[in-house]
Amino acid sequence: MPRIWSQTIEAHRDAVREATLDAAAALVAERGLTGVTMSQIAKDTGIGRATLYKYFPDVESILSAWHDRQIDHHLQELLQTRDRTTGAAERLEAVLTAYAGMLFHRRGHDGDLAGRLHSGRHVAAAHRRLRDFVDDLLGDAAAAGAVREDVPTGELTLYCLHALAAAGDLDDPEAVHRLVRTTLTALRPPDTGP
Amino acid sequence: MPRIWSQTIEAHRDAVREATLDAAAALVAERGLTGVTMSQIAKDTGIGRATLYKYFPDVESILSAWHDRQIDHHLQELLQTRDRTTGAAERLEAVLTAYAGMLFHRRGHDGDLAGRLHSGRHVAAAHRRLRDFVDDLLGDAAAAGAVREDVPTGELTLYCLHALAAAGDLDDPEAVHRLVRTTLTALRPPDTGP
Repeated sequence: MPRIWSQTIEAHRDAVREATLDAAAALVAERGLTGVTMSQIAKDTGIGRATLYKYFPDVESILSAWHDRQIDHHLQELLQTRDRTTGAAERLEAVLTAYAGMLFHRRGHDGDLAGRLHSGRHVAAAHRRLRDFVDDLLGDAAAAGAVREDVPTGELTLYCLHALAAAGDLDDPEAVHRLVRTTLTALRPPDTGP
Repeated sequence: MPRIWSQTIEAHRDAVREATLDAAAALVAERGLTGVTMSQIAKDTGIGRATLYKYFPDVESILSAWHDRQIDHHLQELLQTRDRTTGAAERLEAVLTAYAGMLFHRRGHDGDLAGRLHSGRHVAAAHRRLRDFVDDLLGDAAAAGAVREDVPTGELTLYCLHALAAAGDLDDPEAVHRLVRTTLTALRPPDTGP
């Protein structure tokens, strides 16, 4: 197959996948998770049902792919937050603040999804990437003397990500701000004052 | 109905329920969550299938009740930990340490269950009790000057419970100890040194 063809086919596949995920996302927003059906997605996208089933065996797999894409977007946003901030400590704070803000804004939306996607292998992979990303930030901040070194970085990462997940249970942005502040307090080197 | 009869019936119902939950727990331990069936529970308990269905409509409801009972046991343990410790700050530390220990020891066991029980109304109620309990401990410790007062107690409770949930992702008890220490650091009043 000439290269131009395989590229065209690849682009077409991507377009079908993206259209499917967009349609699923719109349906979830409109009707909730239980309102998403293969027929409705086929109808909304104009993709034939038979074709749709070649890409995704069921609604579950579409929601998984959609969730994965959402996590990807969030990770991209966090990377951008990092890249427009200077200084290891400042980067860590900016990224953790942005992360808590994301969890706050999507609160209530993902509970059902997490339940439906309980096999969750793709979620585990996405979390792994998030962990590695925060790991690096914490490592840099520790090297700059802004983070305690008496606890391994990997453990501090888990601490941060779990503590900030409380943002999903909070009701106002000020509380999220206090949560980030509280969480960061525990990261300071033991010999630093408050 | 004479009182003695209603008491006897009540006791009988409790016994059927307890036996059902015990059988379900044993089956989960032996075969995993997917190995639990109504027929097997009926067989293991000697309760007739028709009777069993009068108590629980399906396996899901049995696992929910079992999970609820487990959370109850954990709460009882935490209450005991509190009651055998003196001093508000010490109580808080002892209870949070015990809580992290529980999450560490049951790690990997509840992931599937949490997924299967995603309706989770009973889980929400149990969490509410846990939150109220930790709220009180934090309030007492704050009144004793051992906990920061610039963040509302309810928010600190959420912070603690989420942060300590990281224990479920840790691999050794020393790391759990460090997690508790890290989490507690953030609770100190701002004017206290490390």
